[in-house]
Amino acid sequence: MAKSPYQIGLIGCGTVGTGVLELLHRRRDVLAGILGRPIEVSKVVVRDLEKTRHNVYGFVKPDVFTGDPADVTGNPEIELVVEVAGGVDEPLQWMKESLSNGKDVVTANKAALALHGDELFQLAASSKRSVYYEASVAAAIPIIEILQNGLVANQITHLSGILNGTCNYILTRMEEAGLGYGEALEEAQQKGFAEADPTLDVSGDDSAHKLALLARIITHSHIPVEKIFTEGIEEITAEDIAFAASLGYRIKLLSIGSRHEDGSWDLRVHPSLVHRDEVLAQVRKEVNAVQVKGDAIGPMLVYGSGAGSFPTASSVVADIVRAAKGDRPIMNSANGQSPEIVSIDRVAVRNYIRVTVLDLPGVLGRVTSFFGMKSINIQSMQQPEAKHGQPVPVVLVTHAVEDEVVSRALDELRERTDLLNGPTTRIRIED
Amino acid sequence: MAKSPYQIGLIGCGTVGTGVLELLHRRRDVLAGILGRPIEVSKVVVRDLEKTRHNVYGFVKPDVFTGDPADVTGNPEIELVVEVAGGVDEPLQWMKESLSNGKDVVTANKAALALHGDELFQLAASSKRSVYYEASVAAAIPIIEILQNGLVANQITHLSGILNGTCNYILTRMEEAGLGYGEALEEAQQKGFAEADPTLDVSGDDSAHKLALLARIITHSHIPVEKIFTEGIEEITAEDIAFAASLGYRIKLLSIGSRHEDGSWDLRVHPSLVHRDEVLAQVRKEVNAVQVKGDAIGPMLVYGSGAGSFPTASSVVADIVRAAKGDRPIMNSANGQSPEIVSIDRVAVRNYIRVTVLDLPGVLGRVTSFFGMKSINIQSMQQPEAKHGQPVPVVLVTHAVEDEVVSRALDELRERTDLLNGPTTRIRIED
Repeated sequence: MAKSPYQIGLIGCGTVGTGVLELLHRRRDVLAGILGRPIEVSKVVVRDLEKTRHNVYGFVKPDVFTGDPADVTGNPEIELVVEVAGGVDEPLQWMKESLSNGKDVVTANKAALALHGDELFQLAASSKRSVYYEASVAAAIPIIEILQNGLVANQITHLSGILNGTCNYILTRMEEAGLGYGEALEEAQQKGFAEADPTLDVSGDDSAHKLALLARIITHSHIPVEKIFTEGIEEITAEDIAFAASLGYRIKLLSIGSRHEDGSWDLRVHPSLVHRDEVLAQVRKEVNAVQVKGDAIGPMLVYGSGAGSFPTASSVVADIVRAAKGDRPIMNSANGQSPEIVSIDRVAVRNYIRVTVLDLPGVLGRVTSFFGMKSINIQSMQQPEAKHGQPVPVVLVTHAVEDEVVSRALDELRERTDLLNGPTTRIRIED
Repeated sequence: MAKSPYQIGLIGCGTVGTGVLELLHRRRDVLAGILGRPIEVSKVVVRDLEKTRHNVYGFVKPDVFTGDPADVTGNPEIELVVEVAGGVDEPLQWMKESLSNGKDVVTANKAALALHGDELFQLAASSKRSVYYEASVAAAIPIIEILQNGLVANQITHLSGILNGTCNYILTRMEEAGLGYGEALEEAQQKGFAEADPTLDVSGDDSAHKLALLARIITHSHIPVEKIFTEGIEEITAEDIAFAASLGYRIKLLSIGSRHEDGSWDLRVHPSLVHRDEVLAQVRKEVNAVQVKGDAIGPMLVYGSGAGSFPTASSVVADIVRAAKGDRPIMNSANGQSPEIVSIDRVAVRNYIRVTVLDLPGVLGRVTSFFGMKSINIQSMQQPEAKHGQPVPVVLVTHAVEDEVVSRALDELRERTDLLNGPTTRIRIED
């Protein structure tokens, strides 16, 4: 007698949901072979029941569509709920109902997990169910599984990732084509790599959500997203990209987690200068990458597609298979104690600083003296030729120095109209 | 009441075994937290019971050592056997006994698995037990798990990997320091990156074993290692490395698996010219890397430490955790039909060809005519200045052409003492 199918419900039938249905269909024989029973999509919750969906009609029975999430979350036939709807509050509610009703949950919803993960994971534990979320970080890259399982024997000491395809696309195009930020954003929007409202991506918030999820695994504890220092790419100019290139660097929006000797963690998201010889610097357009260092393995890096229907659906389907096999993700550590999160003010890094000085005799000497007075040591300085009488951009690279020292110095320097006339920019350097 | 420990037995206490004991000790609290019970190493099988082992005495009880493998393979208390002894026939026997006695098996033994995997996996299936072998390919990189689980929704269409740290170390040093093959091998031996008898590594056989294991997963079928075309690095010269560099390429020993449209597979191991802009070309020294393409995710790449005690032990411990959790690896596909393996003769690639021509008028024209007659189209040609009257090395790059056409042409050309006087080398180009 054939085994009864593994019945799942899908909430959301947009870009990702459509990809999930297609991949489940395409791989149905292989997956049934692996599991010993077929996967059956019993219900698909959509917002608009009237909409025709020719792109998925071949993959599901016509009567699966419903407008009521309770047809999935409360359906006794359904063992697993796949939430790919978007939003935060509603999906959170659906996932909680599903767990309470004894169902496992697969989601790609980084925002809901980053903001309410603790509540959700605790509910999963008390319901003896699991939340699988491979697709929520770096789409195609199985970084959650790698950190949870593959590197379980390691204390992770460092992680740096390019986790937002939109930002990486914009920065790549600014560098390659010499575009300004606005032009590159517009191109990204036209090509479908940026939303109409790109705020969540370009502000760094999306990267911070994803870092919070990875940090939960590598620190073995809940990391509130507001503890992650976050700076976006909106202020990056074509000029900075060009100056960085002349110094041998590219600018990337990095999500960084670094463990200090005392067990505290430095967690932050901001644009970073990465030396062009580093593989991270070579990750182009919408591709994502994560570099980790473990005390047993040393450095490891993985890169792959960070967005899109099929790359995201690939990880959703992998999670569906895991859930169907009964593989329980590792959710918690032995102790669960929260580590201290180091304030950005106390983090010491090298900095790229661009100031715009007045064309006056001795002004450069006075600027460098200013930094010297503030205990900021200058490693190198670059000043292109400028027209006489015009403000002159000057680029300085500092030795490693505590972040707050630089922030305070620059706040003060911006007031010095006797020296400067124009923008002052600071970008941290990732070494 | 505390749960009873998960008891495991270790066969082998060399480089890898020692690392496993240390990592299990170092991570004992975290692992016990994950599993809800501690992992206990009950027995360790060693060849020499008399040998003092100060490096592991802190990690195990003094009475765990035994000289008799049956104390592990036939021990009713032991749930899992970790085989890290080395060799082929004996380990195979121990693993079979362990499976027959209802134990799971973790191994790093690529040779035993590549040569006898089918027998072992079938025994595991009939015993309802599992063989875990993450550490057998690319040490620290969890490529087995990535291919088995993470990318399960994909038809893998291409895989190319740097899977042998010894060869990559030698080739890197030849390029960086201009060393000859012999000198670089000697240095690798001195630094512990090559065995006293390096044959298994430099012949490409070890890479072929590892490719057979990866191919088993991505083709969903048993791949006899003798079906993999295998060529080593012993014939690579400093001259070839320099010529390749001048063309913009590096030479890497690649393990390649490529799926053709008709479902057949091209599987081979040989030195390859890789363009220096490719990330694979930038993988240095003993580091390993695997690039895969999946129909859902597009390209993905992962690199990390490919050898050494802790990197290998890291993957062994990850497998121990998987087994203890009861996560069953995916061993077989729906159908299990063996795909056709394409003969190397039928594979079309571009080639780097170095010939040594006599310093005679018109000889270059006659060589290019010769290739033209054999339907081998030359894409570019490079001839450094040489002393008058001396044989002259000439480097040709061909357009893509069936491998057998090149092999036959070169066999014939080698007889042409009217044109050539010196070595004729062919290295395939990976595009």
